[in-house]
Amino acid sequence: MSEPAVLRALLDALPAGSVLSDPDQMEGYRYDRAMTVRPGMPVAVVRAASTAEVQATLRIASRFSTPVVPRGAGTGLSGGSSAVDGCITLSTERMRAVSVDAPAMVATVQPGALNAEVKAEARRFGLWYPPDPSSFEICSIGGNLATNAGGLCCVRYGVTTDYVLGLEVVLADGRALRLGGATIKDVAGYDLKRLFVGSEGTLGVITEATLRLRPLGPLPSTIAATFADVVDCGRAVARIMATSRPAALELMDAAAIAAVERVRPMGFEAGVGSLLIGQCPVDTTEGARLAAACEECDATYVALTDDPAEGELLMGARRMAIPCVERLGTVLIEDIGVPIPRIPALVGAVAEVAERTDTMIPVIGHAGDGNFHPLVTFDPHDTSARARAEVAFDRIIEVALEMGGTITGEHGVGSLKARHLPGQLGADVLELTGTIKRALDPGGILNPGKWV
Amino acid sequence: MSEPAVLRALLDALPAGSVLSDPDQMEGYRYDRAMTVRPGMPVAVVRAASTAEVQATLRIASRFSTPVVPRGAGTGLSGGSSAVDGCITLSTERMRAVSVDAPAMVATVQPGALNAEVKAEARRFGLWYPPDPSSFEICSIGGNLATNAGGLCCVRYGVTTDYVLGLEVVLADGRALRLGGATIKDVAGYDLKRLFVGSEGTLGVITEATLRLRPLGPLPSTIAATFADVVDCGRAVARIMATSRPAALELMDAAAIAAVERVRPMGFEAGVGSLLIGQCPVDTTEGARLAAACEECDATYVALTDDPAEGELLMGARRMAIPCVERLGTVLIEDIGVPIPRIPALVGAVAEVAERTDTMIPVIGHAGDGNFHPLVTFDPHDTSARARAEVAFDRIIEVALEMGGTITGEHGVGSLKARHLPGQLGADVLELTGTIKRALDPGGILNPGKWV
Repeated sequence: MSEPAVLRALLDALPAGSVLSDPDQMEGYRYDRAMTVRPGMPVAVVRAASTAEVQATLRIASRFSTPVVPRGAGTGLSGGSSAVDGCITLSTERMRAVSVDAPAMVATVQPGALNAEVKAEARRFGLWYPPDPSSFEICSIGGNLATNAGGLCCVRYGVTTDYVLGLEVVLADGRALRLGGATIKDVAGYDLKRLFVGSEGTLGVITEATLRLRPLGPLPSTIAATFADVVDCGRAVARIMATSRPAALELMDAAAIAAVERVRPMGFEAGVGSLLIGQCPVDTTEGARLAAACEECDATYVALTDDPAEGELLMGARRMAIPCVERLGTVLIEDIGVPIPRIPALVGAVAEVAERTDTMIPVIGHAGDGNFHPLVTFDPHDTSARARAEVAFDRIIEVALEMGGTITGEHGVGSLKARHLPGQLGADVLELTGTIKRALDPGGILNPGKWV
Repeated sequence: MSEPAVLRALLDALPAGSVLSDPDQMEGYRYDRAMTVRPGMPVAVVRAASTAEVQATLRIASRFSTPVVPRGAGTGLSGGSSAVDGCITLSTERMRAVSVDAPAMVATVQPGALNAEVKAEARRFGLWYPPDPSSFEICSIGGNLATNAGGLCCVRYGVTTDYVLGLEVVLADGRALRLGGATIKDVAGYDLKRLFVGSEGTLGVITEATLRLRPLGPLPSTIAATFADVVDCGRAVARIMATSRPAALELMDAAAIAAVERVRPMGFEAGVGSLLIGQCPVDTTEGARLAAACEECDATYVALTDDPAEGELLMGARRMAIPCVERLGTVLIEDIGVPIPRIPALVGAVAEVAERTDTMIPVIGHAGDGNFHPLVTFDPHDTSARARAEVAFDRIIEVALEMGGTITGEHGVGSLKARHLPGQLGADVLELTGTIKRALDPGGILNPGKWV
């Protein structure tokens, strides 16, 4: 079998070991964690070790008009890095350097570094990189940047884009650009770095980021409050957000609590309608204010602890929710967002959809941001259940849009939600999106066939 | 004298009173507050009352290839809204509606509303719009959005772009688009709204913004600390930022203190080398930590007060600095930024430039963000002094760039710093800037002849 010309060009241009083309070796690079997305087969996987290797890859891809799918750690939940047929999958997993400039309070990071590695290196200097997707121990900064990842603490501390001072990006034609720098406030020219953040590899490949760090946060107080129903819980969320800035405010509904209890018991009684877990800096009066707000909204149980270990136990259980639910079936993970006053209506509507489609849909969410992950769960061996789950998935997205919300708050559009994007953006914004895309990637080689 | 065709088209399309063409009436719309920028003469000033009138204006401008200079309250410091010859100056001063959705914690705001009006309306609901340029009582939200304005409290609370959830923008061809919405976290598609924020009217005209609000902040503790020299002061800034998140951290050098003392005495002794004014939420221990950091860095005097009135007196004096210096001559206002560790070197270099060019250059700055306003001051009747001031202005910008900094932290590029932008961005980023500009405004009618 003859080698495709593009593969030969990659093998000629890049060091041995940087290019994989054996299907067995490539298999693990085809998928991310969007379990229902069917990936294509790459012509090659490039494991770039440097910006220069990324540039060489993109120059070759441009020359051969070969699609390029950039890839971080492959933990994405929307199929943003799933392969398309005949593509070059461009993995940044070997570009892993992290260097902290403590006096300037910035970290210079290559895209393959894990979020947890950046946190750990910052902590050595008494500093902190806040964005904390639940997958922070296994997800890469490159993926975080590509999706503008959020997490639990962003309700107080902001999302990925809020920490990006500078980027190095490689454009489709192989040119490397530096956008921004290490200065905190900088309004010279367009905010181009934020155009690349969240663009899911469709405008360029991020090869380095200068990330702002903060002083290490204070230890948290943690509250747990249960409610008989989600209406009371939603009222509590609105009241808390109108008066406080919690460092986390997570909601779990009864089905999500039950799924976690089965694996890692938190000790809640059966019949709890919904659970709110909140955190606040321990050196303020906010914890007590959160607890009071929950009591005023008819919480059935409220506990407040200043013990960080107890708090971490609760937050750890919350972070376990998706893996726990995945033990019960294949999961289509929603990532919708709505304005805060719509939370009770949203959770109620999800319950209705679950009933109408006879599908289990536990709900977890970053309630303080109005960002929810209904977990549409089905038996993968039951084709009727899968069909019903797909109906439920689509209907929940429609509900979010009807409420003035979004199809994705932090996971990205990827393949999974691509067909819903026009419904959110509308024709004119979609056209502007295409205009920007064509201006930066005229050959259309960067992560094609997904949402743009 | 015959009426230009574009003026006749505007008069035909827009209600009586929306179009000014009398040179006397237009005079006040030619300038902003960049005192040394020489503005051109518009063919018309359109005082749009609605999005539809903005659209009509841009359609006509496109048809006649007439430049359009969007304008808020005209308080800009960089000449971003100064007229160019033959342009339509498009003022949004009559689009002034502010409406707060308290449960959703957002304000929907037209661009002509003043920053202070948004703050006041939010406060009626116990809510807060933080961005606070020193001119907040007289500057418009439209101008704040166009420049991505900062201010004093952004060191803790962020700049304008951090509060923008949604925008309505009118493109050069007259189409109106809605970007984003009222949802806090939303990663669906490119972050187009943040491309328009800070674009200084070169990509479109913002006709409405959905701004995120916060709970009213706690009252502040205020510290004032003086230092014998700026090296000690710079060390204190770095130490504070490594351990705290002050709600303001302002620096004034000896010349700035003297200029304010002359108008509004703060009671500092002559010979003070530099002054740091900091604020922190009163309900935390941060104020005491700030004071301790100043003492550890050899402050000559440290005072901490929990009295908000006393604190406001100090911050008010700081906000008076530019007007006080303007009594001493014409001022070229710098807006440079550097990484925090470079602060002592920067302030030292400014003093050197002042001496070498025999020019008075008081320095004030948002020290916690590394954003400084050296105030290059000269006698407008002395042509030699003006020439020396211009040399000083340019040299200070070069110094900031040599330190890895920016030519503008919050005021925008405008006309004043346009010729310095290539030095910061470099050829490739400038080319990408042009690519984006041409994609959105192919006729090049939006705020032309400034920096893009």
